[in-house]
Amino acid sequence: MSGQLQVSTSKKTEFVDITAEVERVVRESGVQNGLCHIFVPHTTAGVTINENWDPTVRTDILSVLDHLVPASGRYRHAEGNAPAHVKASLMGSSQTVLVEGGRLVFGSWQGIFLTEFDGPRRRRVLVKVVPDAAS
Amino acid sequence: MSGQLQVSTSKKTEFVDITAEVERVVRESGVQNGLCHIFVPHTTAGVTINENWDPTVRTDILSVLDHLVPASGRYRHAEGNAPAHVKASLMGSSQTVLVEGGRLVFGSWQGIFLTEFDGPRRRRVLVKVVPDAAS
Amino acid sequence: MSGQLQVSTSKKTEFVDITAEVERVVRESGVQNGLCHIFVPHTTAGVTINENWDPTVRTDILSVLDHLVPASGRYRHAEGNAPAHVKASLMGSSQTVLVEGGRLVFGSWQGIFLTEFDGPRRRRVLVKVVPDAAS
Repeated sequence: MSGQLQVSTSKKTEFVDITAEVERVVRESGVQNGLCHIFVPHTTAGVTINENWDPTVRTDILSVLDHLVPASGRYRHAEGNAPAHVKASLMGSSQTVLVEGGRLVFGSWQGIFLTEFDGPRRRRVLVKVVPDAAS
Repeated sequence: MSGQLQVSTSKKTEFVDITAEVERVVRESGVQNGLCHIFVPHTTAGVTINENWDPTVRTDILSVLDHLVPASGRYRHAEGNAPAHVKASLMGSSQTVLVEGGRLVFGSWQGIFLTEFDGPRRRRVLVKVVPDAAS
Repeated sequence: MSGQLQVSTSKKTEFVDITAEVERVVRESGVQNGLCHIFVPHTTAGVTINENWDPTVRTDILSVLDHLVPASGRYRHAEGNAPAHVKASLMGSSQTVLVEGGRLVFGSWQGIFLTEFDGPRRRRVLVKVVPDAAS
């Protein structure tokens, strides 16, 4: 009941919509009711849930994060990607979504995004689907 | 073991204390030990856990978020609620709390808040209570 | 399958690496495959997952948070620790990590941090390890 997504990002900072891939893992798990846990095993990328209809929403979130954690700030971490680490912690590395009737229980406009802050790179996303206990 | 809360918010931005309602879902589930997952199926509202004793705490969190993500910034999302989307991702859309003895395991001052950023509106909060496996 | 860590922080703001202690709880639980939930029952501390190799990463995250939520801002909460409450909500109070083969499934550089924002204090961290259902 676990799956792993491979995501190739193409920009320095980017939100990649992984909703369909996570839905596929849920479907293939055969779980009708339970929970879906999504985990990003990286420290310069995260995962968030937000609107996946109008793409300007993710552009605006990225812009605000760039403004709050500027690329050119005074950071001590020598690899040059300190802002990416900060942004990853602001977004978080895991999300939990309910599963009912074999599908993610989402609001009308919700989608799941891998939030890339130090790309382009190949990223992994872990998905675990846990069924309700038999009753 | 799932419940759904209906929350009517009354302001543009607001923290609504939903602790008692979530506790009620836990109680009605009959689960003694397990986990409680809270999920907000909206993209301009979120959920956070913080102090529910002194109401100025939530006022201060809202003020800081307003300062960090100003209403009058240059956003591309045309609906005018871009700041609400950003704040929702900063707070997060799910929380997980331990359940022991039929109650949420909280620190002395902790409560759960629906974080409204684009109200007033009617909001839903999904609550799922998962019992420990019989051993 | 639950454990509780005691963490003594030594500074006003600090990231304390609790990875080894959480790993120990997982090991002692005997759970081979499942999930590990980490919860901080405090309102001026949180928990985040980020790089635990180069300590300047956590210094940079703390610096950015200090810059975004300054100690000397105009806050209404009279106890003087309003910034700590805001930062706690920005980091979050719970994390969920997959467990496979009796270990946390982490990326190469990931670790779990208690994020202290109003220390020094004694803090508690709740850890719950949930095994997959027998199949």
